[in-house]
Amino acid sequence: MQLDWQLGHAATRDSVPERWIQAAVPGAVQLDWARAEGWPPYWQAEESKRYRWMEDVWWTYRTRLAVPPPEAGGVVRFECGGVDYQFAVLLDGRVVHEQEGMNTAFAVDLTAHAGRTVELAIRVAPAPKSRPSPDDRAQANHAFKPAVSYDWDFHPRLVPLGLWQPAAVVVHPALRFETVDSTYRLNDNLSAATLDLCCTIAPQPGARLQWQLLAPEGERVVLERELPAAARELSWRDELTWPELWWPHDHGAQPRYTHVVRLLDAQGAVRAERRWRTGFRRARLVQYPGQWSTPAGNQFPKPRTEPPITLELNGRRLFAKGSNWVCPEIFPGTVDRARLAPLLQLARETNFNLLRCWGGAAVMPEAFFELADELGLMVWQEFTLACNCYPDAPAYLAVVDRESRTLLRRLRAHPSVVLWCGGNELFNNWSGMDDQSLALRLLDRNCYELDPLTPFLPTSPVGGMAHGHYVFWDHETEREVWSLFQQAGATAYTEFGVPGAANADVLRRILPAEELWPPRAEGSWKHHHAFASWTPGHHLCLAVLERYFGAIDSLEQLVALSQWMQGEGLRGVFEEARRQKPRAAMALNWCFVEPWPAAANLSLVCWPAEPKASLAAVAAACRPVLASAKIARFQWAPGDAFEPELWLLNDRPEPLPSLAVEAVLEAGEKRFPLVAWRSPAAASDTNIRGPRAHFVLPELGVDRFTLRVGVVGRPELESCYVLSFRRTEQPAEHRPMNLG
Amino acid sequence: MQLDWQLGHAATRDSVPERWIQAAVPGAVQLDWARAEGWPPYWQAEESKRYRWMEDVWWTYRTRLAVPPPEAGGVVRFECGGVDYQFAVLLDGRVVHEQEGMNTAFAVDLTAHAGRTVELAIRVAPAPKSRPSPDDRAQANHAFKPAVSYDWDFHPRLVPLGLWQPAAVVVHPALRFETVDSTYRLNDNLSAATLDLCCTIAPQPGARLQWQLLAPEGERVVLERELPAAARELSWRDELTWPELWWPHDHGAQPRYTHVVRLLDAQGAVRAERRWRTGFRRARLVQYPGQWSTPAGNQFPKPRTEPPITLELNGRRLFAKGSNWVCPEIFPGTVDRARLAPLLQLARETNFNLLRCWGGAAVMPEAFFELADELGLMVWQEFTLACNCYPDAPAYLAVVDRESRTLLRRLRAHPSVVLWCGGNELFNNWSGMDDQSLALRLLDRNCYELDPLTPFLPTSPVGGMAHGHYVFWDHETEREVWSLFQQAGATAYTEFGVPGAANADVLRRILPAEELWPPRAEGSWKHHHAFASWTPGHHLCLAVLERYFGAIDSLEQLVALSQWMQGEGLRGVFEEARRQKPRAAMALNWCFVEPWPAAANLSLVCWPAEPKASLAAVAAACRPVLASAKIARFQWAPGDAFEPELWLLNDRPEPLPSLAVEAVLEAGEKRFPLVAWRSPAAASDTNIRGPRAHFVLPELGVDRFTLRVGVVGRPELESCYVLSFRRTEQPAEHRPMNLG
Repeated sequence: MQLDWQLGHAATRDSVPERWIQAAVPGAVQLDWARAEGWPPYWQAEESKRYRWMEDVWWTYRTRLAVPPPEAGGVVRFECGGVDYQFAVLLDGRVVHEQEGMNTAFAVDLTAHAGRTVELAIRVAPAPKSRPSPDDRAQANHAFKPAVSYDWDFHPRLVPLGLWQPAAVVVHPALRFETVDSTYRLNDNLSAATLDLCCTIAPQPGARLQWQLLAPEGERVVLERELPAAARELSWRDELTWPELWWPHDHGAQPRYTHVVRLLDAQGAVRAERRWRTGFRRARLVQYPGQWSTPAGNQFPKPRTEPPITLELNGRRLFAKGSNWVCPEIFPGTVDRARLAPLLQLARETNFNLLRCWGGAAVMPEAFFELADELGLMVWQEFTLACNCYPDAPAYLAVVDRESRTLLRRLRAHPSVVLWCGGNELFNNWSGMDDQSLALRLLDRNCYELDPLTPFLPTSPVGGMAHGHYVFWDHETEREVWSLFQQAGATAYTEFGVPGAANADVLRRILPAEELWPPRAEGSWKHHHAFASWTPGHHLCLAVLERYFGAIDSLEQLVALSQWMQGEGLRGVFEEARRQKPRAAMALNWCFVEPWPAAANLSLVCWPAEPKASLAAVAAACRPVLASAKIARFQWAPGDAFEPELWLLNDRPEPLPSLAVEAVLEAGEKRFPLVAWRSPAAASDTNIRGPRAHFVLPELGVDRFTLRVGVVGRPELESCYVLSFRRTEQPAEHRPMNLG
Repeated sequence: MQLDWQLGHAATRDSVPERWIQAAVPGAVQLDWARAEGWPPYWQAEESKRYRWMEDVWWTYRTRLAVPPPEAGGVVRFECGGVDYQFAVLLDGRVVHEQEGMNTAFAVDLTAHAGRTVELAIRVAPAPKSRPSPDDRAQANHAFKPAVSYDWDFHPRLVPLGLWQPAAVVVHPALRFETVDSTYRLNDNLSAATLDLCCTIAPQPGARLQWQLLAPEGERVVLERELPAAARELSWRDELTWPELWWPHDHGAQPRYTHVVRLLDAQGAVRAERRWRTGFRRARLVQYPGQWSTPAGNQFPKPRTEPPITLELNGRRLFAKGSNWVCPEIFPGTVDRARLAPLLQLARETNFNLLRCWGGAAVMPEAFFELADELGLMVWQEFTLACNCYPDAPAYLAVVDRESRTLLRRLRAHPSVVLWCGGNELFNNWSGMDDQSLALRLLDRNCYELDPLTPFLPTSPVGGMAHGHYVFWDHETEREVWSLFQQAGATAYTEFGVPGAANADVLRRILPAEELWPPRAEGSWKHHHAFASWTPGHHLCLAVLERYFGAIDSLEQLVALSQWMQGEGLRGVFEEARRQKPRAAMALNWCFVEPWPAAANLSLVCWPAEPKASLAAVAAACRPVLASAKIARFQWAPGDAFEPELWLLNDRPEPLPSLAVEAVLEAGEKRFPLVAWRSPAAASDTNIRGPRAHFVLPELGVDRFTLRVGVVGRPELESCYVLSFRRTEQPAEHRPMNLG
């Protein structure tokens, strides 16, 4: 039974709203209010600034309903999937439920009111803030609520509140499920899965519980059990031999079994049914080959060996390639399967196999994980902590405990979820938490108890791993992102980014025409994160673009140059991280898609789902097998010694035969063969380093050239690097726009 | 009611022993059998080799007893504090209890047999082994049993088994305690402690529970509560304002409060009483000042900041100085207060404030922790895992779970226990566990649940920390231990050692007269760890001694030179670690006292309790305040530039005034003033680096000289370093004994 909701706000908890508007559930108070006011979209120009006051008032949802009567022994309940963030439920003006935490569903029993009309209200407190000002992410440091909405370098200040999950009145029969849960454990050689089913029910004499496991390909029953449904708690253990194993898409199939549990009454009629899909896989973090002999040698005093960060799935080590994932909308309640499906399809087509669901953002709805299961995308799921010092206070820990248990119970059936993590960058000085922080020990405990066989990281980065950089050109070290990574030696690069402008049509949509050109460090360009979002010049980095390319004349040229640099920069990092395999085991860029249309940022895809040109370069770099070149830098000039080093990168579980690789420099019509290489055969999941070319660049007469690394007879392995060339006749002085 | 025990052994579980001997409880089967056989002490010569077979047979303890009848409603039980290691309890031939794990006490209810005579038997399985051979520590890698007894470089192969804890038949009244537990939590400013008491009882109508907290100085009641003892579970919360805080001895007093809980019957008579002492302190691991700015600079990709390892007690950072602690007996059941008190008194007199109870050894009995509480010695307590890869197997985890809960409940009331740790060196390649190992996640979970405010380390070393070296002279790097540490940069040196021979009288006691001189790499010298215990030459290191001193002519000379080197080596490491404060926060040598009389090892005290000469040097290095010198090496020659750098080391919470420091070189009757320094005033807990002396060594005409660093008017701060001098007339060639 759906409900009609009205929404109003007031300055204090106990004052009554003066105005009531229609509310959409699931949604957010901000969306309702903007709709009622007829405002333009929040993502245009500086519209989102209007919403600032909404986080500081008390919101009330109300509805009147005639409570339908259940059958004898049945119940009728108000059931809600989640309210963001701190709230009370009132029945005819009396508080019947209070809660802090957006992820934990709740129910209010209305059975005693059956046949009557009641008023149900949900009173939502202002957004939680640990201090009144300044308006920044630290205000979220006592809440299990996405810190991103408090202001981030890619997210405006806009803190969602309200009924973001479905809510309805539901009538249940006397014979019904209360909770249904199943877990499994694969044996050491993966030849059998022990399945545990655990249900709490409202029992009935003569009733039976039926449990079926259906095969991946359809409705064929592979396991079936029935037991008397005579007790409140029922549990059953069974074994499935030779389960088909779930793999990420680049390593195998995605078989998904279906659990069906039914409650049958004494007459054999089905009174309740639950159905959900699962998959069987074993995920581990393991040492890379040779890691145990690090630190090298017999040097004393001797430290520990670094923690493992190589993903092993079903006994096979994988190189993880992917992106950081943030909620693709400012308002997570609007994210559904239709919104997610094209994005995740695109992630798969980018040859990504892992998405890191970052702790600064809201945890995705079920559809995300169902799609990840279907598409063979692995998920690293963080709890909702990021870049803050979350306290050891018992009240906060109680919220973390409840919310994390909810998330663990909900997500552990998804084979795609291969890694739990406490949150983002908590062990760095901008956060200030450490290994002793109770919230992280609590999360480890809950993961251990509820999903012990999926690995847990307290945060990212931990020892050996590293985050950043987020530039193409680093002012501090005066180096490009390629050389920064060629000098680095991390075990996993789990965040790095190169800025890129949004597509021109996106810019036209979000920026007022009068602000569009030239970009200025103020107004909508700034509000949409092109300036002063991190350093003064980020994320548009005009000064860097002009350093490389001189003056820029048009919006189209700006976008093209910026996305070219982004694409080549990221390609270089992904391929370098892969060259560092097996020590390096992960490369995850920041980020896939943005939660609103930034004018410039680090994402590969513009909001809502428009790929930047840079996405293709990343997709090429993440092919399971490719010919690759290690190149010292992006921009070249006549007389420079150009010395790319050839590689074959192979993440496949199959060996590579000997191949004929050749590198050619192409500039306009000119073609310079650089080096040919007959590679040796390569073992599975193993790269091969080839020769280094030596070529002194002549005057090429163009402003860019292509290094084409091809493989005879295997065009799909070819890589093309488009590099910048500074012609001698080109004026050396810059004409900076003085913007960043 | 004490019991008379008989003991026998058989080859299989179900065969009956052929011979029964008298058994002492608590004790060990080995001690009983040796006594019955009249063997010489196991620590003489190679006697301990005789015991090898005892670990592979089934041992049975038996006793006959007339079960005394309890009062109406009362119970009579067989209660045992612990059996080592896997065992069954049989009552008249029927198994009534089975258990794996030596630490968890158990009880068998005999009430139904009151008035009858029964036979009680405890059948102890052979020592657990994960594989039959070779005989090494890896056999213990599926057990929560000290790995040390399976053979270590300071411990012979000798695996204790049997009733190592007291066992008795106890008659309980109807009104009685089953469990009694209390915890506390200090508030942020340490001005109040919230105390929780939780009891399970056998209740009685009209009965009352009385809870008193007595002040440290005596029987003055500071808190008193009574509640009806009418339910099985009783809990109570109360608050103590301004509790006197417990400190380690070098920082304050050791106030210990006494809990008294009593059950009073309806007539007001005390029917049961429990009494135990506790202390209030807040222990944390915190970053050192400046640690959050590491890794330094704005370098990307950026790793995490290293984990904190600086102990903070009651809000004050402490430099931890101490030793690793191993059980001082091969048979832990023989360790009592009388055995421990002089050792712990000695540790305090050595200026130690922290003992690391190492995971390879048995957890100490209550007396150890009571003494540590009394004496103000902090304890780092590890669970029983060391240098092995303990499995993720559910059966093993169940034992770890039970045993660790037992230990946590038992020890958490002791203010001295400031740090829990999963075990020793588990994250190094000789062990092979890592951050994902389930046993360590389980231990973290149990510590979080049962003692969340005491810090937890998964193992030692973790990131930033380091173990070793265990030599004076390192063959690999051709450097002395001083320079190894002067180059190191760990956050905590939680194991390091320098070998030293045992005292001459100890050697005479343990080695047969015919083997005593010269030492040979065989027989009793070898069996007592002087040779081949780690490298072929360890721990006597004759070749190193001869490298420095030439041929050695007598046992007395050998001992003197070896202990001199050990003392100066360790003094140099302790003082260097302190000079590295605040980055370095701990210096814990390996080890304090050995579990049996080694002929040479790394300990400071010979078994049972005889200090080596080196102990005095360590005690001097660990004074809270001292004048110190950083010296490049131990041995010098004419013409060398001797350039000690002066320091004042201050671990006190008070500042140091300006002091007049002077360094003088003394050689026989000669006296060379090197440098005088008027130090600036120093802040509390802060070292000061002074000038470096420059002195070209003349021919001194002696084989050793003293660097005396004195402080005018403060003789207690003076340090004297005794250094080796190689006279020019001394023959350069060595006369090695060719032993190691």
